[in-house]
Amino acid sequence: MVPAIAQDYETGKVLMLAYMNKEAWALTLSTGIVHYWSRSRGKIWKKGETSGNIQEVREIRVDCDNDSVLIKVKQVGGAACHDGYQSCFYRKLEMGTLEVDEKKIFEPGNIYGVGK
Amino acid sequence: MVPAIAQDYETGKVLMLAYMNKEAWALTLSTGIVHYWSRSRGKIWKKGETSGNIQEVREIRVDCDNDSVLIKVKQVGGAACHDGYQSCFYRKLEMGTLEVDEKKIFEPGNIYGVGK
Repeated sequence: MVPAIAQDYETGKVLMLAYMNKEAWALTLSTGIVHYWSRSRGKIWKKGETSGNIQEVREIRVDCDNDSVLIKVKQVGGAACHDGYQSCFYRKLEMGTLEVDEKKIFEPGNIYGVGK
Repeated sequence: MVPAIAQDYETGKVLMLAYMNKEAWALTLSTGIVHYWSRSRGKIWKKGETSGNIQEVREIRVDCDNDSVLIKVKQVGGAACHDGYQSCFYRKLEMGTLEVDEKKIFEPGNIYGVGK
């Protein structure tokens, strides 16, 4: 299992970091749609399977040690984060505090249902 | 221990992925110079301690699950990778093969000594 960074292929914005196992890697290559391995759910996770915000592969890069992956994607729906933001890194450290400095693209309650 | 992505603060280029433990995180915050935890060497690793190619912190972001970090840096010397390239992700997957599509900034043998 290796960490995979998803980066917007046009803006260069880093959208998220998740993990891939061999199956997720193979599915990503064969479908052109990013699949991860969900560590919390213990199963393959087609990113966007619920929200529709899938990630289309534009470019795949592998690091020097072959233990991490950088995937440049087209982020469908404009938001990668299940909290409704473009990027999962929507908080910036400012004077020791994490401050949100992105605008929400969607309200998670509307997509995933109440209680999510 | 969490994965930390280093990204060039000006160009948005993803330079590398490494890991931070609490000590590396604290040192990074207190010094403004990126420190990682080297999993292979089992010790704190001030990036650039040998090559001089340190990373100056420009911005720190934390993801929605608090389990990965994105650090925007000024990459001193222009090269993050110990193989001599700007980015550790200097290879792109092309038709099932990893192809180098960056130019070397330095020759590792000149920096780290012969045999490295």
